[in-house]
Amino acid sequence: MTPPHTAAGGDGSVRSVSRAVELLSLFDVDHPTRSLRDIVRLTALPKTTVVRLLGTLESLGLVADRGEFTYSVGAAFLRWVTLAQSLWEVSADTRRVMTRLVDDCGETVNIYIRQDLSRTSIAQVEGKTTVRSVVAVGAPYSLSAGAAAKVLLGACSDAALRQLAERDGVPLDTLRSEASSVREAGYAVTHGEREMGASAVAAPIVSADGRILAALSVSGPTSRFTADRVGRYVDAVTAAARDISEIGLGTVEAFL
Amino acid sequence: MTPPHTAAGGDGSVRSVSRAVELLSLFDVDHPTRSLRDIVRLTALPKTTVVRLLGTLESLGLVADRGEFTYSVGAAFLRWVTLAQSLWEVSADTRRVMTRLVDDCGETVNIYIRQDLSRTSIAQVEGKTTVRSVVAVGAPYSLSAGAAAKVLLGACSDAALRQLAERDGVPLDTLRSEASSVREAGYAVTHGEREMGASAVAAPIVSADGRILAALSVSGPTSRFTADRVGRYVDAVTAAARDISEIGLGTVEAFL
Repeated sequence: MTPPHTAAGGDGSVRSVSRAVELLSLFDVDHPTRSLRDIVRLTALPKTTVVRLLGTLESLGLVADRGEFTYSVGAAFLRWVTLAQSLWEVSADTRRVMTRLVDDCGETVNIYIRQDLSRTSIAQVEGKTTVRSVVAVGAPYSLSAGAAAKVLLGACSDAALRQLAERDGVPLDTLRSEASSVREAGYAVTHGEREMGASAVAAPIVSADGRILAALSVSGPTSRFTADRVGRYVDAVTAAARDISEIGLGTVEAFL
Repeated sequence: MTPPHTAAGGDGSVRSVSRAVELLSLFDVDHPTRSLRDIVRLTALPKTTVVRLLGTLESLGLVADRGEFTYSVGAAFLRWVTLAQSLWEVSADTRRVMTRLVDDCGETVNIYIRQDLSRTSIAQVEGKTTVRSVVAVGAPYSLSAGAAAKVLLGACSDAALRQLAERDGVPLDTLRSEASSVREAGYAVTHGEREMGASAVAAPIVSADGRILAALSVSGPTSRFTADRVGRYVDAVTAAARDISEIGLGTVEAFL
């Protein structure tokens, strides 16, 4: 569940901050607490490093010690809760369209935005089956693989495509041609690109002047994205993306 | 508005993480965006350091570049929003008691908990006047000054009191005697202790077995905490703290 794209900077200060964020990312609604042993295993860092990092994060209020070598996120996060919600949460109307799309397709629906050279889900409604696509809201994922990524590539400058090609070791021509063909088609379908056995259909959410702001995606196990169903999913996703484009994303749009 | 207590560790990695958190703390509901110039001025860091730090935080999704050298918090915070709320937010009933206390006294009401050697407000209802006490929810404040601090000292081990005395340069005997007398009195009143011109009245929120879990405080300008009013505030705060102790703080209690 560790997001595949976290900054791996050369200098030490970048690395410390990345490590701290990586550690904090181990906590989510499904894992509100973590044992020291788990944290060491999941970060693959030396125990002494983990203990020092936990001490620093605790003194900053970002980690709370629950005793018996168990930890959770600290109250300092409350500082950003209201702000992050007011800046990043999509409108109730948009969420209703997403829920309707889940009702139609049965699969998990996300809205992804581009942040630098990654993509991040800012809103999610989970699918209805036990085997379903699970990505973490707010976590960075690849911008060079997956249906939502291909939709977002359509909004990238050529300079950004170059940087991405270099960073992810993907041919620049491939990214360019994917960006333009997906922009033309108005949707993307991928199978096993980001992860084996995972498929997705995505379509652009656009501004009044036609700029690609975000990608709406439906994703799940490849076994359920059969040829006959994918046609229906493409129709449903593109229609829902059009609805959301009309409604607008809300305050988030100021960032996109 | 920068909280007075952030970890100032000796080694570089601790410092990088502290600096990153300090920078992120500049963003709040009143300052959803900050210019590069403001960030440099408020952190008092060299511009090159700030630019590098912003780059790192942006690549991690914690900062969003809004163009024209203006920044805000990034979508990565969404990852912890639901979790932090579910862990740290007080119950609706408790919030109602706090609102009633604001109605009674007109001043800002906070619930503080101890985190390590600091105290942090986990819930706030703001006062009704333009000149009012403003502290940031989630930010660390002094555990050796202010009425809420004195209430929380009553729950500190002697080892914690020793550490605090050493860190804040306060005589250990003073802390010990304050802790025991406030515990005996059942409330604390301070004037200008944490900040000149700021006064507060606080009382303990306790568990079923009498452990001090948190401090409920009313705070505002000293000019309004006159002798005749303070008596009334003490009655109101101790009564409200008893009500909250009966209701319970909710999931937060697991941490306290």
